[in-house]
Amino acid sequence: MPKSGDIPACEGTGEARCTAPTKLIEHAPSAYSYPLLIKHLLHTPLRHAPDQEIVYRDRVRYDYRTFDRRIRRLAGALAGRGVRPGDTVGVLDWDSHRYLECYFAVPSMGAVLHMVNIRLSPEQVLYTINHAQDDVLLVHADFLPLIESIRDRIERVRTIVVMVDDYEVPATSLEVGGEYEALLAAAPEDYDFPDFDENTRATTFYTTGTTGLPKGVYFSHRQLVLHTLAGAAAFGASAEQGRLHRGDVYMPITPMFHVHAWGFPFIATMLGVKQVYPGRYAPETLLTLIETEKVTFSHCVPTLLHMLLTSPAGANTDLRAWKVVVGGSALPKGLARAAYDRGIDVFTGYGMSETCPLLTVAQLTPAMLDEPADQQVENRTQTGLPIPLVDLRVVDAEMNDVPRDGKSTGEVVVRSPWLTQGYFGDPAQSEALWQGGYLHTNDVGFIHPSGSLQITDRLKDVIKTGGEWISSLEIEDILSQHPGVGEVAVIGVPDDKWGERPLAIVVPKAGHEGSLTQGLLEAHLAAYADKGLISKWAVPDRIVFTTAIMRTSVGKTNKKALREFYAQQAGEGSGA
Amino acid sequence: MPKSGDIPACEGTGEARCTAPTKLIEHAPSAYSYPLLIKHLLHTPLRHAPDQEIVYRDRVRYDYRTFDRRIRRLAGALAGRGVRPGDTVGVLDWDSHRYLECYFAVPSMGAVLHMVNIRLSPEQVLYTINHAQDDVLLVHADFLPLIESIRDRIERVRTIVVMVDDYEVPATSLEVGGEYEALLAAAPEDYDFPDFDENTRATTFYTTGTTGLPKGVYFSHRQLVLHTLAGAAAFGASAEQGRLHRGDVYMPITPMFHVHAWGFPFIATMLGVKQVYPGRYAPETLLTLIETEKVTFSHCVPTLLHMLLTSPAGANTDLRAWKVVVGGSALPKGLARAAYDRGIDVFTGYGMSETCPLLTVAQLTPAMLDEPADQQVENRTQTGLPIPLVDLRVVDAEMNDVPRDGKSTGEVVVRSPWLTQGYFGDPAQSEALWQGGYLHTNDVGFIHPSGSLQITDRLKDVIKTGGEWISSLEIEDILSQHPGVGEVAVIGVPDDKWGERPLAIVVPKAGHEGSLTQGLLEAHLAAYADKGLISKWAVPDRIVFTTAIMRTSVGKTNKKALREFYAQQAGEGSGA
Repeated sequence: MPKSGDIPACEGTGEARCTAPTKLIEHAPSAYSYPLLIKHLLHTPLRHAPDQEIVYRDRVRYDYRTFDRRIRRLAGALAGRGVRPGDTVGVLDWDSHRYLECYFAVPSMGAVLHMVNIRLSPEQVLYTINHAQDDVLLVHADFLPLIESIRDRIERVRTIVVMVDDYEVPATSLEVGGEYEALLAAAPEDYDFPDFDENTRATTFYTTGTTGLPKGVYFSHRQLVLHTLAGAAAFGASAEQGRLHRGDVYMPITPMFHVHAWGFPFIATMLGVKQVYPGRYAPETLLTLIETEKVTFSHCVPTLLHMLLTSPAGANTDLRAWKVVVGGSALPKGLARAAYDRGIDVFTGYGMSETCPLLTVAQLTPAMLDEPADQQVENRTQTGLPIPLVDLRVVDAEMNDVPRDGKSTGEVVVRSPWLTQGYFGDPAQSEALWQGGYLHTNDVGFIHPSGSLQITDRLKDVIKTGGEWISSLEIEDILSQHPGVGEVAVIGVPDDKWGERPLAIVVPKAGHEGSLTQGLLEAHLAAYADKGLISKWAVPDRIVFTTAIMRTSVGKTNKKALREFYAQQAGEGSGA
Repeated sequence: MPKSGDIPACEGTGEARCTAPTKLIEHAPSAYSYPLLIKHLLHTPLRHAPDQEIVYRDRVRYDYRTFDRRIRRLAGALAGRGVRPGDTVGVLDWDSHRYLECYFAVPSMGAVLHMVNIRLSPEQVLYTINHAQDDVLLVHADFLPLIESIRDRIERVRTIVVMVDDYEVPATSLEVGGEYEALLAAAPEDYDFPDFDENTRATTFYTTGTTGLPKGVYFSHRQLVLHTLAGAAAFGASAEQGRLHRGDVYMPITPMFHVHAWGFPFIATMLGVKQVYPGRYAPETLLTLIETEKVTFSHCVPTLLHMLLTSPAGANTDLRAWKVVVGGSALPKGLARAAYDRGIDVFTGYGMSETCPLLTVAQLTPAMLDEPADQQVENRTQTGLPIPLVDLRVVDAEMNDVPRDGKSTGEVVVRSPWLTQGYFGDPAQSEALWQGGYLHTNDVGFIHPSGSLQITDRLKDVIKTGGEWISSLEIEDILSQHPGVGEVAVIGVPDDKWGERPLAIVVPKAGHEGSLTQGLLEAHLAAYADKGLISKWAVPDRIVFTTAIMRTSVGKTNKKALREFYAQQAGEGSGA
């Protein structure tokens, strides 16, 4: 049998037809071929929904016709400021209509959009701006002090454009090359985006691992167009639940600098839906926008959903028409249940910075929607099923598939047409990412017999105790279901006898600060162990109560920092 | 401003960053790139719906797991029969699970699937088999006599595999290289489909114009994968009406040899829906399958919908859960109304053999679904809105866009990533198809202010009378709404004074054969003319009553033949 990548040769037949290379690819790209460019995502909305609205907070509201004219003006303005194909344009902004304009205008000129992570430290922001070789920066007024503080060490940037919400540029020591709206107003609206190779780099941003310097990943036009098509197909395919369709109103609650807000702004634009951009994420603003703009579809990390559900401002907000994809880290069952009980269509999406990001989504079949709440929460918190074209496997160290039995774990590895091919300027890390033809996610999980993936932990967060692997996420999940637990993190701490032992760090819910005890939580865990749902050695030896859990700049639990802190504490304790 | 296809050069800057060609396409294809191959459409169904059914009439019923094993067995069997990458495999079959297996197995081996049009004359079938250079033929027993009659003149075919429904190969004078099921049973099921260039030719078939020899068109893996993704996105994007989703049951009623059954088998497979293949199209069989298999989604030409609605067998069939996309020729309002009144979700799709075929679809917004029946029929019979990535324009002879005012007509021209790049071995016709970077459809239409396209006629069927253009389809549409009219065709016949004048050919509905008169239809048309809905000179001078309208092999009205017949008749008449 022929193997992948090995087209059988025409040996032995000796016939004229055996001219495979020519005949096989007779259909070569020609002048008629149609490159997959981001600009082509605009054909449908401009015909389906030219009057549909794009909204920025309570400040700006315009239609897709205007959007199209504005991205052409923006491209014209940038070209006028010397931006050429291959240049890199860095953006520092809150979630806005301006950012959406940059998503389309900058790559469609042939330039590269650098979505600067504004939550990094000034030193890290400086590093990314220099490493990505930004030529131009578009900076919201709120970030002028940040840029001022690092200006002297920025290497390449030749123009800074200021973006303001109030048409008033604040005083700054920077040499400013114009204000965004003024530049657009002065630019012609007939800029015609060129055709070029679909493998041209379109976007870049930096992942914020818990180790080392930020790592730059990048995506091409082809990758973003295919991600958009497959995402639209996946969110359109569900019979009832978790759909994104033309009747929806979309609002991101994952920052636009973070993996293109998971790619949803591209999908929403292609579908021509109403889009709402909320600026900075204040729970009151988000809840007000959901209510007044009738937002029906969002995505966020668990922390943000938790903030919205516990915000006093939202106690009476009707969220029953709201769908929310939760990703970035595991959706705890307790949080999913709280959202479900509010009537929210909550479900899991999975992906990572390196994967553009969408890989799987946990959509429910109509039959599953008839199941009791507990079972629905179970299904909604699974990692989900692959979206079209995603080849997702769970493998052992030798790249053999583990059984799809709902318990055998292994590393999740993937192929799809929209995975980053490496870290910018870092061949060693890139090579570690790709092994055996698959991108290695560093996530550990298993596949349910239903086909659905369940991530159980990060490879590096697995707690190795006495030769067994304990999933830190599983213990967190069980603890999160106790009524007194607000937030929780479980980590491994060094142990002389077992290698590692689990430690739980718990933030009690408001009103439970004094009453929640280690004994109560141990009893809660013991009940699960008695039922055989977790092993007895998975029950943490120690539970620490605190008021906040250390997080990374994108809101994920910073387990590396927690491990270091508690390992050191344990060392100091034993040394005292 | 830079123009399309013209990337601005880096003149005048003299800077090191101006190394556009390298930097621009830094993201070049590599060992990690993921070619868009048909085999990759199988990742999702095998995880989402491995137990979902694929059904062939009342004969065969199996799940997607079995489907996957069978296509691997088929590839192994064909490889064992000497099929190599670049070879062409011709198929002559009714709509079946076997045909679906060929859709996936043949291209995924790197071979080309030739979907032989079994409705052509034996001479034309012979022409296409020789012209496509078929190496192997898979032939349903029903077509053995056809192949026997032309066997001596088939040039290249070295193996014939017989496909039967009853495991009994009929007597034949042909040298047969095996029976389909026996070959699959003997083949291993671990055939591993190779990777290769996504621009490899995957399929070919012949269009049956009304002029000259059949013309071969062909599509690559890349084109079919993109067509599938965009089609799934389009049918998933509608808020309520005209969706295709995982809960549907799909059955084609457009032959699988005709433009891959409009590409829907690929979409349905990727979504993992239940699929029903009906064999030969007998109204009774189709209606029974819709009822017993609970079919919810189909597509067909108007003639077939008309047959189903008027079949006595279906008088009591509940069709209220059935969605049907009608294309191939214009959906007459009378037929659409009859379907609508039966509770069918009927709507228009538009495309052609050269376009893979999907270009537009007439989906209704929730607001439109609240409108009265007449208005819904109006919206459902519009040609519709472009699906994702389709760049569709209506232009004058100089390629300028005509106003989108709901009346200015021009030729429909398109770009999208799935248009055939030409006719096989026919550079002259290919060049005529592509002009100014767009594929010319030869269809005339206008764009409603809503953005929806309305085809008014084929460029060659437009009736040119006294310097005005009359749409033959518009007059057909009005006549079809008369309660006594079954079928109708309107053509131009030569006229000394006006150049051409319209002539209508009418098949009365059952029971109206004697009573329907030219006077009644003239009065019907005059009422429309009085309301200004058509011009008075568009009313045909002559209406001919007949029992059947000449059609092409795919069921379209053969206007060329009708024009020749009636032009000759007129000539004989005047000469008599």
